[in-house]
Order: sequence, then structure tokens, then C-alpha cells
Amino acid sequence: MNNRISSLFGIKFPIIQAGMIWCSGWKLTSAVSNAGGLGLLGAGSMEPIILEEHIRKCKNATSKPFGVNVPLIYSRVDEQFDIIIREGIKIVFTSAGNPTTWTTVLKQHGITVVHVIANVKSALKCEQSGVDAIVAEGFEAGGHNGKEETTTMTLIPLIRQTTNLPLIAAGGIATGRSMLAAIALGADGVQVGSRFVASEESSAHPAFKQKILEAGDGGTFLSMKKVVPVRLIRNSFFHQVHKLEDSGASPEDLKELLGRGRAKLGMFEGDTEDGELEIGQAAALIASILPAGEILNEMIAEFEHARKELGEYRIS
Amino acid sequence: MNNRISSLFGIKFPIIQAGMIWCSGWKLTSAVSNAGGLGLLGAGSMEPIILEEHIRKCKNATSKPFGVNVPLIYSRVDEQFDIIIREGIKIVFTSAGNPTTWTTVLKQHGITVVHVIANVKSALKCEQSGVDAIVAEGFEAGGHNGKEETTTMTLIPLIRQTTNLPLIAAGGIATGRSMLAAIALGADGVQVGSRFVASEESSAHPAFKQKILEAGDGGTFLSMKKVVPVRLIRNSFFHQVHKLEDSGASPEDLKELLGRGRAKLGMFEGDTEDGELEIGQAAALIASILPAGEILNEMIAEFEHARKELGEYRIS
Repeated sequence: MNNRISSLFGIKFPIIQAGMIWCSGWKLTSAVSNAGGLGLLGAGSMEPIILEEHIRKCKNATSKPFGVNVPLIYSRVDEQFDIIIREGIKIVFTSAGNPTTWTTVLKQHGITVVHVIANVKSALKCEQSGVDAIVAEGFEAGGHNGKEETTTMTLIPLIRQTTNLPLIAAGGIATGRSMLAAIALGADGVQVGSRFVASEESSAHPAFKQKILEAGDGGTFLSMKKVVPVRLIRNSFFHQVHKLEDSGASPEDLKELLGRGRAKLGMFEGDTEDGELEIGQAAALIASILPAGEILNEMIAEFEHARKELGEYRIS
Repeated sequence: MNNRISSLFGIKFPIIQAGMIWCSGWKLTSAVSNAGGLGLLGAGSMEPIILEEHIRKCKNATSKPFGVNVPLIYSRVDEQFDIIIREGIKIVFTSAGNPTTWTTVLKQHGITVVHVIANVKSALKCEQSGVDAIVAEGFEAGGHNGKEETTTMTLIPLIRQTTNLPLIAAGGIATGRSMLAAIALGADGVQVGSRFVASEESSAHPAFKQKILEAGDGGTFLSMKKVVPVRLIRNSFFHQVHKLEDSGASPEDLKELLGRGRAKLGMFEGDTEDGELEIGQAAALIASILPAGEILNEMIAEFEHARKELGEYRIS
């Protein structure tokens, strides 16, 4: 039987590059798509006119399928979808919101729609709203995160028993071995974020990329739970957040500390102490900045190597 | 090559039943060992004289290898080890403490020593102290938990690249599929806790077992982080803890709320609202109370089935 994710998107490898704010521009997206994965532009940090520019540049840079990730909480989502439809984009991942709001509209324009979730309830909502596939993202993932704190190891089997939709696992997946584990748990494919932030083509600031290489075990932490849970690197900004949280701060206090442009400051402009650095636990497993195509090829090679080993594993 | 965990303990399946407080008495331990896994008595909730009784009853109930789990933080650890040595126990798992304190002494008595960890730093300490194997336990696990909050998906590859010691994965493992995922990540075997709490032979109160069946996605939460992180079922006691934490309570406030005997009250005496119910996220995947031997056989059958499927998985 063919791979449901590779078939759905017309790609070679069932590996999606997450559409992340400040990191996933046309360079990364086209590099991943050219190498046989599915690249996603991260619209969450793009003004509509910037998104339009990235879509056009991406089209010039690849003839392979690529898509756009749109977090539904942003204010100018309508304008973003206008552009996406006008530019003839055929793959959209929606996240951080309700899948029922946009799925029907997008599908009427012949768009394949995937929604990102972190719990069973949202998976059921996805099924009702008619999405083509689901990304289920565990607690170890970078950036915005579910309130249930369900990890990838628990979440994937839970979602697999909830729905028969094509399922993409995310959270903690940065190597061929973790891809193998995700497939073992019942996923059809994987979405990879952190590993691609640390790629040559990502638009993350070099100082941020360096911080990823340095982040070891326990180097990230889920914070801002009273506002929206987000996984961050432990830098000065994180410690300020943590101190406030420890003393029982209100959501308003936290929002005030966060202010505006904090993620851009850290991830795009490279202020690694006062900026917000969103990355997953998998950062601890990342030891090099590589071209995105090489990352993909390494993952597939390690997947096949580990699968062979697993075939030879003896119980006794 | 033979399985390093099965060989180390002289067992049939590389599945360890976690030695859990209030749940792992001689009935569960002997049932697991008789069925081909490794049963562990949970000494953490036993007065020394009770431990002695359970060891003797377990010896009568099985001729197969079994062991004892000793959390090193308890006050009467010396007496427990005296009994363990006197009774000729040959397998000890230590947890919640420093592996250097007891490993040499135990090994001088011909005991195979395994230590439970949740981070890279402790894995290195295990190697230096000469333990025979490591249990690496992720954030999704029930009960006491690491401060780093590293999930099984991230922790296992991290520990695998840190040490070549035989490695047992724990946290979120309740089925053959999650066992397969853990092995794919680099573990040699698995330790299973929650699934065995929900067994016929466990000494958990029937009302607690029922709560496990009812716990869905997000049904547990990591709490008491300012004292020692512990994963609990969301009941009245949990909500009191959570409220205190949200308002910035001190460790002393939390300890006062916890009081004494709270875990016994919930897990052993069956007060599922005011008691402390320690269980892992995998509870969401548990739908039946079964004999421990049946749980083991189901896990192995599902493991082999899922491994066969994984062999047939197509990337394109």
C-alpha cells in the first residue's frame, strides 16, 4: 500500500517541514520540497504582502509541491487566505484555532487542508470539519503547545485510535530513529520543526541557530501556561517569565512582560537573551547546521538503518 | 545477538514491571515474573518488616527471577537493604537518589543493580558508579518525575548517545506499539508502570484502578514542581494543589497541603478525591483490568504485529 501522506501531497518522503514563524521562508520551503519532502511557508510571522512575496519566490525556486501554514489566531488571516487562493496554493496547514472555520472554504478552492492539533477533542473536530489529514503535536514540540501536555509517545496512539484520517506526528522528531518511533506508534508521516530551524536555508538568525546547538537536555521549557503554553529556550527572557510564574503572576502580568515583537527579536533579529526563542526538546539532539536537503537524506538513511536493526532485534 | 536486558536478568521478555508504591506487592511481582517478565516489589511504601514479608511470599509464589525497587530518599533504606541482602535478593532497582551511594555495596553482595534516571547528567553518574543497567524515564511517566521534563521520545536517544549501558525505557509505555517505539529509539527493553497498576494482581485499590480506566487525554498532570515533580490524576486533591501553585504558593505551603499518607489514602485505601493518585499519561490508553500475564502476552503479540507492519511500511 502506498504511503498516505506521500500520496496526498505528491511527494517522495512523508516528511513535512513545519511552517514556523520567523524561520520558514521561501528558501527553506523550496529547499525541502526540492529534496523530496513537503516545505511549508510559515505565514504566522508574515504581513500579507510579505506572504505574497514568499509564495512567488518559492514558486520560482521549485516546481515541486509546497504549502503554507496559517495560524488561525492572527488578525489578518482573511487577507492571507485571499492571497493563498489567488496564488493557486494547493496545500494549507492550519493551526492554533478551530478547523471548522476555514476548511470548507479552502476545500471549495481545491486546496488540501491539514489541521494541527494536540488533543483528542480537536482530532474529532478535525474529522467533522472534513480536513484531509491531521498533524498531532506532542508536548516536546517547540513554540505553541497544548494545555493537556500530552507527549508524542502517548498522543499518537490516542489519535490513531480516535480517527482513521492520515496522521502526521510532530514533537520531538528530529532524526530517522524518532521518525521510525512515530511510525511504529501509528503515524503515516512526520512533521519536523526544530531540526529545520537549524538548517542553512532557515531564516532563523545565526545566533539563534547557535543557541539550538548549545541547548542540551532540559535546555527548553514549557512556559506562559496562563496565556498560551509555549516551549522556549532557557535564556534571560525565559527566566523572567519563570520568576513571574513562580510568584503567581496573572495572565495580564505575563502579557505585559511578553510585550510585542519578542519572538521576532529573538528568532529573527538574534537577541538571544531578551528575545523569545521557540524551539523543541529535540534541540538537545541537534549538533550541526546542515543544508535542508542533507537533513532529509540523513533522516531517511537513518530511518532505514534503524528499521533494519529493529527487524533483527531479539526479545530473548 | 541476545537481548541484553533479558540476558542480564535471565528472563524471557525484556519487560520490567515497575516497582511502584502501594501497587507492587508480591502478587503482582510474582505474576509478572511467572509470565516471563521481571517483577519488582515496590519497597517505597513498605516498612522493613512488610518488605521482608513480601519478599518471602514472592519467593514462595515464583521460582523465576524477581527484584526490589528501592527509592533512596526514604528514611529506613539501610534496614531495607539489610533485608534485601539477608534474603538473597539478586536484582535491585534504585531510584530517587544518587546511584553512587549504594551501588558498590550491593554489587559486593552479588546483586545486579539498575538505577532509574530522568536526565543525561544522572546517566553519566550511573556509568561512574558501576550500575549494570539504566532505566530512563520520560515526562509522561506516573509518580515522581524529572525536573527537566524531557519526554521519552527525546530522552531515550539522548541517553543512548551518552552511554552504552543496557537501557530500559520508561514513561508512556503501555502497549506493544509503544514498546516498539522505545526499542526503535535505542532502548534494549522497557519498564511498564501504569499498565500493571491496572492489573488484577496489583494492590492498587479497585476504586483507583477504576479512575485509571476513566482517565482520558489530559487526565493526568505534572504537579508539585516546587517540592518534587509528581504526575497525578486530576481529582479534588490535584485541583487544590493546582490552585495553590497558580497563586504562587511556597514549597512549605505545598508540603503542608500534601501532609502525610496522602498517596496511601488514594492509591491503597481508595479515596479517589482526597487521595494522591500517581499514574502516567498512558492511563489514557488503558481500557481494561487484566491479569498481569495476559498484559505481558498482549504486549509481546502487539509488538510483533506492529513490527511486521513497520517492515511493510512504504515511504512513497
